[in-house]
Amino acid sequence: MILGALEAGGTKMVCAVGKEDGTILCTETFPTLTPEETLPQLIRFFAGKNVESVGIGSFGPVDLDLASPTYGSITTTPKLAWQHTPIASRFRDALGVPVGFDTDVNGAAYGEALLGAGRGCSSLLYVTVGTGIGGGVILEGKPMHGMLHCELGHILLRPEADDPSPDGFCPFHKGCLEGLASGPALEKRWGRPGRDLGPDHPAWDLEARYLAQMCADVIVTLSPQKIILGGGVMHQDQLFPLIRRYTKEYLNGYIQTPEVTGGMEDYIVSPGLGDRAGITGALLLAKDALK
Amino acid sequence: MILGALEAGGTKMVCAVGKEDGTILCTETFPTLTPEETLPQLIRFFAGKNVESVGIGSFGPVDLDLASPTYGSITTTPKLAWQHTPIASRFRDALGVPVGFDTDVNGAAYGEALLGAGRGCSSLLYVTVGTGIGGGVILEGKPMHGMLHCELGHILLRPEADDPSPDGFCPFHKGCLEGLASGPALEKRWGRPGRDLGPDHPAWDLEARYLAQMCADVIVTLSPQKIILGGGVMHQDQLFPLIRRYTKEYLNGYIQTPEVTGGMEDYIVSPGLGDRAGITGALLLAKDALK
Repeated sequence: MILGALEAGGTKMVCAVGKEDGTILCTETFPTLTPEETLPQLIRFFAGKNVESVGIGSFGPVDLDLASPTYGSITTTPKLAWQHTPIASRFRDALGVPVGFDTDVNGAAYGEALLGAGRGCSSLLYVTVGTGIGGGVILEGKPMHGMLHCELGHILLRPEADDPSPDGFCPFHKGCLEGLASGPALEKRWGRPGRDLGPDHPAWDLEARYLAQMCADVIVTLSPQKIILGGGVMHQDQLFPLIRRYTKEYLNGYIQTPEVTGGMEDYIVSPGLGDRAGITGALLLAKDALK
Repeated sequence: MILGALEAGGTKMVCAVGKEDGTILCTETFPTLTPEETLPQLIRFFAGKNVESVGIGSFGPVDLDLASPTYGSITTTPKLAWQHTPIASRFRDALGVPVGFDTDVNGAAYGEALLGAGRGCSSLLYVTVGTGIGGGVILEGKPMHGMLHCELGHILLRPEADDPSPDGFCPFHKGCLEGLASGPALEKRWGRPGRDLGPDHPAWDLEARYLAQMCADVIVTLSPQKIILGGGVMHQDQLFPLIRRYTKEYLNGYIQTPEVTGGMEDYIVSPGLGDRAGITGALLLAKDALK
């Protein structure tokens, strides 16, 4: 089975051809310009490669309602050129194959659930902490939808007393997760990008507390069997033990399950697929599109 | 089909015999004393009534993991006499019929989804705001489980600047929803029970802002197609328009779906089944137990 996969990000588009077991046969990356410039490049990548279907994990918000006339579109994104772009149908029409479609983070979550750190879990949360913060959710083995889809970056957090910028930097929301803890928020708060802050900089303790608040909140709402934290900011390995410790402090013994009563080393983890979670998930979406 | 239903609450136990369409044929309420005193009373209620199965919606936390040796038990509840009570198996053994089991709020959510205000929705959140605060979640038409189950009362909120008690009153968590917005929290903050505060008391505006924070948070995490707010505190009808308005303010235009872009009169609603949501849901759990 030869499948096409697209991880459609706001900065770059990763295309791949691969197999249902996650093997990548070839891959190419394109900058995200406008739909008029970029979509033809992506379609040319897949054309002639005999893919049986294409799976797309896209930046959003996206329309995942199968009954909607705009199903498969990017909707109200702040990337204005991409607003209301019917991305799934553009590929279906151009390539003549079925197209699977979901959010980029639901795709990554699906990849991790089937082939990564979440193998054996029927539910999990995948969070990317980078330019933005997004969450993908697997429940009963499938990506979760609802009225829309998870927009985890915009949960409101309790400000930490030692935060010099407790309102954060989101243009929509005072004190939301993305505004407080994304890569750009780190840079705005401390005047330098995260990668230029030493591992002992107080930035990381504060960052860990905000991410731990998020973990505690999703444990009492979505109740995932595993929390997988990926994205550029999570390359700072020193964050993981801090996040586990603070999550435990926030929960304060209220939730008593084997997953969270210990040190949570197997509960709050990094992606098993590393930076390939998204493109692997897109392959799995392609496979499902053939059903 | 004659079905048994038990809404097992921390204060009272509501038993009913009814039909799969939600019709209640007879009902009786018992105070929640100890398992030794109360369970035999409940079992006597059902004995001889020819129920084909029993559905139980129980206060929790409970064990919903079908693979667990303690499936169907109340686990780490602060009501110490009920800790580790295998409630589902007690009924199954005594009555010799299948037993369906879930949280009280998942039961109520299920009742509302199939026979109440959530008809036509494949996903919804039911919240009870009373002695405690709990949330039940329906996704893809079924009660949501995961590592454990929703414990919505314990999400952390951002304190409101005019709150005289911004840490709230939860013994586990500073600033969680239940500690800030339950009936007992209202009484502790204002020195009188909510029912003795006039509808123009500032308590209600603050209460609405906390419940709106919760609504905004679940919209960006669980993304339900409807939010149903029940329980004693929600008998204060003046809360609904305030909650809708503040939820909109917190979201600030970030989520653009037909459900939330208008006045949300059909999105944040009271239970269609009123105070019968829980017992009706338990009937539906009984029906599912026969499958």
